[in-house]
Amino acid sequence: ELTALTERLFTPVKNLQGLHFTITAGPTREAIDPVRYISNHSSGKMGYALAAAAAKAGARVTLISGPVQLPTPAGVDRIDVLSAEQMLQAALAAAVTADIFIGCAAVADYRVAEIATDKLKKGSENELQLKLVKNPDIIATVAALQQQRPFTVGFAAETRNVLDYARQKLLNKRLDMICANDVSGSQIGFNSEQNAVSVIWRGGELDLPVQAKQQLAEQLIALISQHYQA
Amino acid sequence: ELTALTERLFTPVKNLQGLHFTITAGPTREAIDPVRYISNHSSGKMGYALAAAAAKAGARVTLISGPVQLPTPAGVDRIDVLSAEQMLQAALAAAVTADIFIGCAAVADYRVAEIATDKLKKGSENELQLKLVKNPDIIATVAALQQQRPFTVGFAAETRNVLDYARQKLLNKRLDMICANDVSGSQIGFNSEQNAVSVIWRGGELDLPVQAKQQLAEQLIALISQHYQA
Repeated sequence: ELTALTERLFTPVKNLQGLHFTITAGPTREAIDPVRYISNHSSGKMGYALAAAAAKAGARVTLISGPVQLPTPAGVDRIDVLSAEQMLQAALAAAVTADIFIGCAAVADYRVAEIATDKLKKGSENELQLKLVKNPDIIATVAALQQQRPFTVGFAAETRNVLDYARQKLLNKRLDMICANDVSGSQIGFNSEQNAVSVIWRGGELDLPVQAKQQLAEQLIALISQHYQA
Repeated sequence: ELTALTERLFTPVKNLQGLHFTITAGPTREAIDPVRYISNHSSGKMGYALAAAAAKAGARVTLISGPVQLPTPAGVDRIDVLSAEQMLQAALAAAVTADIFIGCAAVADYRVAEIATDKLKKGSENELQLKLVKNPDIIATVAALQQQRPFTVGFAAETRNVLDYARQKLLNKRLDMICANDVSGSQIGFNSEQNAVSVIWRGGELDLPVQAKQQLAEQLIALISQHYQA
């Protein structure tokens, strides 16, 4: 069964015509004031590779992107956003027509409670407390849709207990699949050209080894499509 | 006198052989944990344009750069840093051999008090206090050097009371010149192709109007060099 699966994974998929993927990618950027922000090291490369792979296989693709330095893949509709709140609005608007939703963006868990209108001036204080409030959970919100809920795939980027956290997320957020990503090293994950993930679903797991992100993306799109159609 | 100055400003300078400029550019990035950071919208374009203009005029140029998406200008020695602390160390090492130090980087005023070794997990709390501590003031530290102090030029990027804040900074930080930059609009300043600055020194001020950053940089290098040599 594993051999058959592996063979199918390595066979390019060309039959995704009629499917609509909505994919989020990149970081979000949460303003502190007009000049400063909180963000993260996501380069967007994995999400863009997934969008390119799905489009190449014939699917309609909506890519909701945080601020990244990447060209839009051929045949992909790209919507640019900055904050998690903006990404949520774009994701909900696109999710209702999507068959498959892949949340690959590294969404900021917290935003600044009150964004300053003018640049904050450095005071004489040596310490400053920045009050943060929790952002909406985009992938969990999509997975909880009561009507027109897409097949929902998440990513879990972690630096330790990677598989444990990913299995928890799959259940807690009611996802259909999750791709666990160890970002503790520099060879794979954030901003690197290669990646390796463990894909987890209810009833199975599959390790996809270190390889170029574009090749990994094609295997993931094939695997996700097989589970969606199953 | 203004006409003569303006004429000199618009005449390309080619006589900076033997001068060593150290220029800082771009944002700094202050880690929260292995994945998240605080940064700002500085693109580095103005500092890179200054480095290019000084090198074109024959000067030796050390460019200390935060994380930006820009090619290194021809003939410029570039040192890449991330945090304000790293930028300070590089600036102090380069400043002692520099004739002119231009602090064009948007250095984070604060960094996170304790950087987490592993990715912070989102807890059940809806709020989070992020404790920040003040960063070293790079330009003031350079201007306060007792030995081998370079001619020190700062930038003040502000969204309001731009000239007042800049005049205060010139005096408080004991700078030789300061370039005041209104970043409240989107047409000039951070991440735009154009800029306009008011240059302030003890005894004079000069407005340089909106124009391409590279052209403005050439005028600034000419003006700074004239004041250094006066």
